[in-house]
Amino acid sequence: MKEKIPNLILIYDIPDDAKRTKIADACLDYGLDRIQYSAFCGWLPNSLQNELLQKIRRILGKKPGNVQLIPICNEDWRKRKVIDQTAKET
Amino acid sequence: MKEKIPNLILIYDIPDDAKRTKIADACLDYGLDRIQYSAFCGWLPNSLQNELLQKIRRILGKKPGNVQLIPICNEDWRKRKVIDQTAKET
Repeated sequence: MKEKIPNLILIYDIPDDAKRTKIADACLDYGLDRIQYSAFCGWLPNSLQNELLQKIRRILGKKPGNVQLIPICNEDWRKRKVIDQTAKET
Repeated sequence: MKEKIPNLILIYDIPDDAKRTKIADACLDYGLDRIQYSAFCGWLPNSLQNELLQKIRRILGKKPGNVQLIPICNEDWRKRKVIDQTAKET
């Protein structure tokens, strides 16, 4: 089956370590891919986007945090610019 | 003058503290707004997007890091979903 082009990115700032880990797990449960430590991308229809955000809201409770789910159309995804450098083995 | 709707987000994972700070400064120099600790948004034409990425590439040098500049069209920006909770004063 052809892999779907991502239609969203989800980024977060969560100071509480345990909450942050649970939120990352929720993103993975919804099939998102980790692209950075606190950034995921993937394809979800709008109803599942809302469901995931509700889940994140419940995990976060009253703790501080900022979570942004930003839809990305195919054209924008195609135009993204990435610098990716891994640590050199010595 | 009317504030321009952002046309990009820029997110990064940079392990080196000094490099990360310099890269944040570069983003601010280009007029981007910080929306999370390692995430900025703003409006830049394509030529300045490339210029900023070149600058970031120079700052990073051979250090490890992942930087993604993702164009966001107005419609997607309008449809973004944000959870924003600040720490309660006690």
